[in-house]
Amino acid sequence: MRLTSFTDYSVRVLMYVAKKEGELASIREVSEVYDISINHLMKVVHLLGKGGFLHTIRGKNGGFRLGKEPKDINVGELVRYTEDDLSIVECFNSDKGRCALVEECNFSGIMGEALNAFLSAVDKYTLADLIQDKEPMNFIDQH
Amino acid sequence: MRLTSFTDYSVRVLMYVAKKEGELASIREVSEVYDISINHLMKVVHLLGKGGFLHTIRGKNGGFRLGKEPKDINVGELVRYTEDDLSIVECFNSDKGRCALVEECNFSGIMGEALNAFLSAVDKYTLADLIQDKEPMNFIDQH
Repeated sequence: MRLTSFTDYSVRVLMYVAKKEGELASIREVSEVYDISINHLMKVVHLLGKGGFLHTIRGKNGGFRLGKEPKDINVGELVRYTEDDLSIVECFNSDKGRCALVEECNFSGIMGEALNAFLSAVDKYTLADLIQDKEPMNFIDQH
Repeated sequence: MRLTSFTDYSVRVLMYVAKKEGELASIREVSEVYDISINHLMKVVHLLGKGGFLHTIRGKNGGFRLGKEPKDINVGELVRYTEDDLSIVECFNSDKGRCALVEECNFSGIMGEALNAFLSAVDKYTLADLIQDKEPMNFIDQH
């Protein structure tokens, strides 16, 4: 179970831009810092701009900065926006997939509850929390 | 974000076998019911047997049945067993991946907290809950 690299890169871009505190960033610059391809980053920046997370300025001296204050960028909202598929299992979608047990199985309901628990945990944080000095978190090893 | 098909198939196999209430099941039979390849199922059944979730009997009249009572098969324990990678993001692993911000970023801590919330929700259920008659669950749409 893993977030898409699209979400991962989106978080990295927003963190990098937040640290520039209003100064414009360029795709080339972010690409070099994180060793991520320019093609990937172009898609990420485009979508983040469309969603209002980034403010993008076209042209030779263009670039991008945050579209909102770090404290106003909710991590849960971002993850819901960048993950194209939050179907934990095949039968989670409205077309129900092709599982023979779909009418008599409670698994997708349980997974829905678990996904809500995951997103509720993430909803407590904003971009400001991501970039502040590291503190011990309420993190217990899952094994 | 999605569970592997290995986990999905493991749940389906256990549900199918649970409904047979002790009668042996065969890989061919499960393959036909779910339209899953025999090759995939052989790996699933082998691993579930190794983990004690199934009791497998070799030979011409062999097959498999549950290794424990449905109420003793915890869904959270099963998911931890069948998911080979619960690294929600690259930097979650002990080698920390190759992100330039790894030392100053709180994202993996937040994702760890969220993963724990996900698994804690799943830990409340057993295979017996999966196969009992459907009831409305505590499931709120994530959008």
